[in-house]
Amino acid sequence: MTIDGAGLKVDPQDIKLFEKFIPKIEKYRQALNDNILDDYKLPEDLIPQSLGFDVTKIPEKVLTKSEIEITELKAIDLADKIASGEYSSVEVFKAYAKRATMAHQLTNCAMEIFIDEGLKRAEELDEIFKKTNKTVGPLHGIPVSLKEHYDYKGKITHGGYVGLIDNVSTETNQCVQILYDAGAVFYIRTTEPQMLMHLDSNNNITGLTKNPHNTNLTPGGSSSGEGAITAMKGSAFGLGSDIGGSIRAPAGFCGVWGLRPSQKRIPMFPMVPSGNKTQENVVVVLGPLARSAQDLELFMKVQLSSKPWETDATVIPLPWREVKTPTPKELKVAIIYDDGVVKPTPPIIRGLKHSAKKLKQAGVKVVEWESFNVKEVVEACYNGYNADGNAGQLSLLKLSGEPVVKLSKWQLNVGCGFDGQSVSEYQSNAGLRDSTRTAYLKKMNELDVDFILCPLYSSVAPVHETVHYWGYTSLWNILDFPNVVFPTGLKCDPELDKPDTEYVPRNEDEEYEYKLYDDATVFTGAPISLQLTGKRWFDEELVKASQVIEEIIRA
Amino acid sequence: MTIDGAGLKVDPQDIKLFEKFIPKIEKYRQALNDNILDDYKLPEDLIPQSLGFDVTKIPEKVLTKSEIEITELKAIDLADKIASGEYSSVEVFKAYAKRATMAHQLTNCAMEIFIDEGLKRAEELDEIFKKTNKTVGPLHGIPVSLKEHYDYKGKITHGGYVGLIDNVSTETNQCVQILYDAGAVFYIRTTEPQMLMHLDSNNNITGLTKNPHNTNLTPGGSSSGEGAITAMKGSAFGLGSDIGGSIRAPAGFCGVWGLRPSQKRIPMFPMVPSGNKTQENVVVVLGPLARSAQDLELFMKVQLSSKPWETDATVIPLPWREVKTPTPKELKVAIIYDDGVVKPTPPIIRGLKHSAKKLKQAGVKVVEWESFNVKEVVEACYNGYNADGNAGQLSLLKLSGEPVVKLSKWQLNVGCGFDGQSVSEYQSNAGLRDSTRTAYLKKMNELDVDFILCPLYSSVAPVHETVHYWGYTSLWNILDFPNVVFPTGLKCDPELDKPDTEYVPRNEDEEYEYKLYDDATVFTGAPISLQLTGKRWFDEELVKASQVIEEIIRA
Repeated sequence: MTIDGAGLKVDPQDIKLFEKFIPKIEKYRQALNDNILDDYKLPEDLIPQSLGFDVTKIPEKVLTKSEIEITELKAIDLADKIASGEYSSVEVFKAYAKRATMAHQLTNCAMEIFIDEGLKRAEELDEIFKKTNKTVGPLHGIPVSLKEHYDYKGKITHGGYVGLIDNVSTETNQCVQILYDAGAVFYIRTTEPQMLMHLDSNNNITGLTKNPHNTNLTPGGSSSGEGAITAMKGSAFGLGSDIGGSIRAPAGFCGVWGLRPSQKRIPMFPMVPSGNKTQENVVVVLGPLARSAQDLELFMKVQLSSKPWETDATVIPLPWREVKTPTPKELKVAIIYDDGVVKPTPPIIRGLKHSAKKLKQAGVKVVEWESFNVKEVVEACYNGYNADGNAGQLSLLKLSGEPVVKLSKWQLNVGCGFDGQSVSEYQSNAGLRDSTRTAYLKKMNELDVDFILCPLYSSVAPVHETVHYWGYTSLWNILDFPNVVFPTGLKCDPELDKPDTEYVPRNEDEEYEYKLYDDATVFTGAPISLQLTGKRWFDEELVKASQVIEEIIRA
Repeated sequence: MTIDGAGLKVDPQDIKLFEKFIPKIEKYRQALNDNILDDYKLPEDLIPQSLGFDVTKIPEKVLTKSEIEITELKAIDLADKIASGEYSSVEVFKAYAKRATMAHQLTNCAMEIFIDEGLKRAEELDEIFKKTNKTVGPLHGIPVSLKEHYDYKGKITHGGYVGLIDNVSTETNQCVQILYDAGAVFYIRTTEPQMLMHLDSNNNITGLTKNPHNTNLTPGGSSSGEGAITAMKGSAFGLGSDIGGSIRAPAGFCGVWGLRPSQKRIPMFPMVPSGNKTQENVVVVLGPLARSAQDLELFMKVQLSSKPWETDATVIPLPWREVKTPTPKELKVAIIYDDGVVKPTPPIIRGLKHSAKKLKQAGVKVVEWESFNVKEVVEACYNGYNADGNAGQLSLLKLSGEPVVKLSKWQLNVGCGFDGQSVSEYQSNAGLRDSTRTAYLKKMNELDVDFILCPLYSSVAPVHETVHYWGYTSLWNILDFPNVVFPTGLKCDPELDKPDTEYVPRNEDEEYEYKLYDDATVFTGAPISLQLTGKRWFDEELVKASQVIEEIIRA
């Protein structure tokens, strides 16, 4: 492809090159389909043939009572039951393999399925447990889903790039290895969008993934498949990554929990796109999508108790601290109702107001946060992504000449876009980041709050391939304040959440996003989720607070 | 000034502009001289009128027995004696004010002296102690010297740039404030070279600083004055900063202790050159120059017990851990005899061999480190400094049109020099850094060592304005493994350390540095110091180990 000032031109050469990759894509898809075992399949007649459905309850029509029981448990409780001998690893695995297969049939959440390997692993774990009467670790027998782009020895890892469809990993990502060493069972690698840079799901290999709550809508991204499978209870928890909202958008849009930890606590190498380059204006992090705060904590404990800093010098030796669960009266929260750039839509405002009311009633200190510097800092974040004039991303797209999908085009043009930055500008970006980081901390101190509650996007899950504005999540990526996304229990209701037709948008971004929510019926059933932010590197306090806050809001 | 490919051309405009600054420089120098109080002065006849002298013992000829006793104590012991009431803060301050004044007269180590303010502060501290019978903190009454470039409210802060000679700080650097809050007494700000980027001392405001052990030689830099004053015992300890060796070169050249902590533990804002830009390929850190390992630890404890991360979001919440002092048999050390780029000169090799022998005799595990990747990584480090094509430094030099001194010219041309880098190249630099970081950690694990002992420069302190190669220190800046520099107790001896005239240099850098050591008599008495490196963010273990290792070597 060639670049002009405005974006991307398709090159005849690329079209020709891409043709050579089409058989490879077909082969890849075929392998994916071939690995869907009949034993675990949903009958075809239960699979909706059009969009607009809530598919979350469909697997229950087929699953046994015991399978439902197993897959409904939190990972921490499931681990206890395996460790006590109540469930075998194989029994647990089969239930999850079934539910995961159905999740994929209903949402297209898998990039790769390897049930056979998972079953063998579960059998081995049972064997060990039988012989030693001990678990191999705190995740013994826990089925865990993995976003595709982490290297996995012996498996293709492409990161959503067609050009990497022949790339077989020679080693396994350290974070993944830690989960394995703690006893996790792997059997599915999940979808992500092209370039891993949409809050959505489309790629040229496996296409769109659907939101389980309403298949009209995106599950979010870039950990798209993780959002869908976690909501479908097709894994006990999953591993995502986040440089602009990629854990939090799918968690929020799919109504599950997601943690974006502070940077440099969780090891992350190797992964695709890999790195002989380090972009550190905005740092990618790995983290869990799960169904409870306790399971987010379990993930962090497993990771940090392995002392990853002993072999990866980019990881800070910050062990996971045990902190007490706060009482509601000990909690101090500022709420952002509007970031000053894109005002949230009616369902999100309802979620925020509902939450504020519940929290106040419970005795939580609640104050309002007046947004500042958001536009500049989000722009700096976008600049950070594209500071190399997209050289890295283009070189990977060029490998196959694959078509650049809609939201990739948008993403490549945000911030400095194809112009890129000079090193001076790049360093100014980082300077703005650092001064704002401290300004935000100072404001938290002035307001005397430990947490900030806000939307994770200006609306609920949008229709496929429409989401643009990343500001509600990417603000925290560049500032590196950790976040938990959690479901409020509320869902979008066309009766309660009618579009605000009188609102006059303040800028183009807002106008674009606001127009997406012009017919509330399209969004029926979309989860209303919120994002809780803590102080940098105080992930422990954040996770505990999110647990209490969610309980209060849900009550 | 204008730039050509090779370096810097003097512009007639700059000469004209600089003329306007000459009266300002004169005024600044006059203020420095005016603040040298007669009470504390050394008689003129004790001040050597030529170079080549060891001036470290001169103050003792004039100081009283009690003044010598006070100024010879470690800061930790001095703090105890003040806290127990054995010494008053004023008594301590006067002894140090005297010795610091003499240090300045003998080495030209001060940028600014403010004895009056220090005395007032000491009086206030005594008053508080008298009233409350309590100290204000662990540094109550401890005289501490400060490198000039930290902002200090109400005082000029120029960072060695003539163009900033009118810049009056509006707030005080946080690290400095923490020392103050712990009871430190300030009275002197010390010299640094132009641009803060030489391992030497020259600037256009106060000129050269001299090495107290041999005034032929540089005290090192960029914390030049801190090296000199600490060796002269003109402060209990001092505050330096280091992005390429700026704490360690002066500590090593002047035969005192220096700690370059792992990054992001010590707060560092605001300082000059200040920052609406953040260069993070190689990160500057603040740290102490002192006369013992215990005092390095004292500094770190004071800083981290103040929890600087509560107000500066760039600081990692890593409290100072209490670790036990290792026995010699618990210590595992690799020694670098040659980094593969510039072979050390005879006195340094003697120091290394002497140390290895002593350590082995004491039961320390000692293995040899075979250097790898040094040339590439040091080049990446140089590139990091100049990635903006020197835009930042040039803009500050241009403010006054000041002449660019010899070693500034050299520094501006290292690495990518005036060409700068693209953001892609800059990110590749950081990528190489990260992979090498982990490769070094892996190698430490393979060798089963916790520490690396190596030179801090290829030789002892060189003659003024000759030092080029930063590799022995800057390698660790880019990798961010923490370092302690300490004196071995050995000094350069022309009889023992004859130049190796037969050695054939492997490259230009080596040829240049090797030629500097062609007449050992020039370096008589220069301290032979070494550098101990620990694992990233394990500063606690490093400081304790350095204490034990120095004791073994000195014994």
